[in-house]
Amino acid sequence: MILRRVAVISYGMTKVDKHWNKSLRSLFGEAALNAINKVKNPKIDAIIVGNMCASDLSDQNNIGAIVADELGLTPITAYRVEAACGSGGAALLTGFSLVSSGVYDVVMVGGVEKLTDNIGKMISFSLGKAADAEYELFYGATFASLNALLMNRYMYVYKTPREAFADFAVLMHKNGAKNPYAQLPFEINREIALNSEYIADPIRLYDCAPIGDGAAVIILCSLEEASKYTDSFVEIIGISGASDTINIASRDDLLSLKATVTAANNAYKMAKVTPKDIDVAEIHDTFTITAAISLEDLGFCERGKFDKFLYEGAFEPGGIVAINPSGGLKSRGHPVGATGVYQAAEITMQLLGEAGKMQIPNAEIGLTHNMGGVGSSVYVSIMKRVK
Amino acid sequence: MILRRVAVISYGMTKVDKHWNKSLRSLFGEAALNAINKVKNPKIDAIIVGNMCASDLSDQNNIGAIVADELGLTPITAYRVEAACGSGGAALLTGFSLVSSGVYDVVMVGGVEKLTDNIGKMISFSLGKAADAEYELFYGATFASLNALLMNRYMYVYKTPREAFADFAVLMHKNGAKNPYAQLPFEINREIALNSEYIADPIRLYDCAPIGDGAAVIILCSLEEASKYTDSFVEIIGISGASDTINIASRDDLLSLKATVTAANNAYKMAKVTPKDIDVAEIHDTFTITAAISLEDLGFCERGKFDKFLYEGAFEPGGIVAINPSGGLKSRGHPVGATGVYQAAEITMQLLGEAGKMQIPNAEIGLTHNMGGVGSSVYVSIMKRVK
Repeated sequence: MILRRVAVISYGMTKVDKHWNKSLRSLFGEAALNAINKVKNPKIDAIIVGNMCASDLSDQNNIGAIVADELGLTPITAYRVEAACGSGGAALLTGFSLVSSGVYDVVMVGGVEKLTDNIGKMISFSLGKAADAEYELFYGATFASLNALLMNRYMYVYKTPREAFADFAVLMHKNGAKNPYAQLPFEINREIALNSEYIADPIRLYDCAPIGDGAAVIILCSLEEASKYTDSFVEIIGISGASDTINIASRDDLLSLKATVTAANNAYKMAKVTPKDIDVAEIHDTFTITAAISLEDLGFCERGKFDKFLYEGAFEPGGIVAINPSGGLKSRGHPVGATGVYQAAEITMQLLGEAGKMQIPNAEIGLTHNMGGVGSSVYVSIMKRVK
Repeated sequence: MILRRVAVISYGMTKVDKHWNKSLRSLFGEAALNAINKVKNPKIDAIIVGNMCASDLSDQNNIGAIVADELGLTPITAYRVEAACGSGGAALLTGFSLVSSGVYDVVMVGGVEKLTDNIGKMISFSLGKAADAEYELFYGATFASLNALLMNRYMYVYKTPREAFADFAVLMHKNGAKNPYAQLPFEINREIALNSEYIADPIRLYDCAPIGDGAAVIILCSLEEASKYTDSFVEIIGISGASDTINIASRDDLLSLKATVTAANNAYKMAKVTPKDIDVAEIHDTFTITAAISLEDLGFCERGKFDKFLYEGAFEPGGIVAINPSGGLKSRGHPVGATGVYQAAEITMQLLGEAGKMQIPNAEIGLTHNMGGVGSSVYVSIMKRVK
């Protein structure tokens, strides 16, 4: 039972892009000031930062202290949380518990990642560290090739046409084209997706999220104090993490990610809602196959019917749930350790009615779904508009 | 105000050593089973892991999922926390808030590090990532050379004899010689310390903590439920983190670490105790100079009088406070991201009267002090024997 209810009072983000002229600290600072400037003088007690690759790609650990210093907020508590691509979601759970426990009153949860301007560093190898170094990477697996196994299996078991995955990418780019923060804000069509280059058969370029640089931030405080800082805010009514075996060979089933099912069920239960109650969701579509399986695991789609639901418009406004109005990882981009915080910022923006051309009308309850590894570390949160 | 009080109900650790025959996951598993076997069937809800270097030295991120899988505990929540050498302390704060908030009932807080068996990997470079990559490492600074600046300054300002630092190392090795988990469990004398090789003038080999492999674990639950699991436990009565500018050139004063002062004052206030009430402390003596400054910042010693207090026996049983009965980082060893959890395990062991030859008689209140970088990320906890 949660002892103190928690609100999101602000959010900020940078465009996901190739930010070759901005450092880790300046990217984070930009998103953080964006969030701080939206609220009335919040006295921030702690910063929790989601990040995966700074050690590999920027030779920097200890980035909690880095960003506290950048914002002139030392000596507040500041540290990093890491669960591969699920780092942002884990940071959100950490910030939630720091506020809910009464340890701190106002906590900034952020994520930052710089992936693109590293000459001579192996980004694919760095991202592969989300998988099992001893039992997967050692044998030559990459993150894309592991997901390719899932996609082959899905198409074999469910007889799903290859085109459905391409068409999901088309939908994501249609959404992302309206997002000023998106890395790839343009539309594509089925032919472009189907004919893009192979990454790991059957995964092609347009089945994959791009790599990008970016930072996102939200600010949390207790629900009862939220109106001190702002006139409009949302409440985190459900939140959970979950894990699974890191190497996929140890699993019973490749077509359901146990950690998503567990985290989602826990979050729904805590929030006292069902998948039907969710108006808008930002889900973790690293690859189009990840989206298909996740939509089923989250309860938005019948097992193996991803294509049918897609073509019925289930994932668009007016359907079952509006999926990834931001464009998702596919089009908004995937600044790895920041992605979970982007999702939380985007859902907050939707629930506050501030999403501009991306706005889903009358969105009252939203969900974030953030995943590390091939479903080995999953974080789900559910937010509700308060006023 | 803390909403639910938190107890430590168990602890476990491996010897700090060159564990060339054990992987990250098996080291963690050994410490964790050690802790689990001490209590009656705890249903663990989450694992928080402190670790700094696995990404660099074992090509592995996402180690929350790795250790949950190793223990057969998936799909529980599991993730990593990083604040350089302060990672263990940050993991403890995270676990504390997860229990105190009611998000989870039983949380395992652990730390694991493997540093020694990496052929061709640059351990010094990896550890340097605790300092500022852009403003310190780029210019050739190492972690030892930054601390050497502090030591030179201390001796210049306070006219402290060089021998006092050597004699602190002698005391740490005297303590560590009684610790079955210590990496360097042997005594030394002043001559050995003074004549050991230079690392970064004036820091010599015996001023430095060794690098080592190891894992430590504690198990937390709410105070009111602790007796369900065990007959003897301790309470965490104070806890805080704090940060400072990561590059030391930006600081007003090199002879006091603001983050230690802040974290300690917050923890004392929360615990409603003063430094005089502490019976035993495990402090972060990465270098002998770090010990001197930290003892002053924690309120155990007058400013600049480190040598005087040392020679009066202030830091030994019967003195002001028994410092590092484990031998500290100097002799027990410093498995970086695990060190803060070793300290918490050791203080728990002391307060429960289970420390064998290391036992400080009648220890009732203990303190841990864990530091990342040159004082840029500091975590202090205060524990009290309950029964």
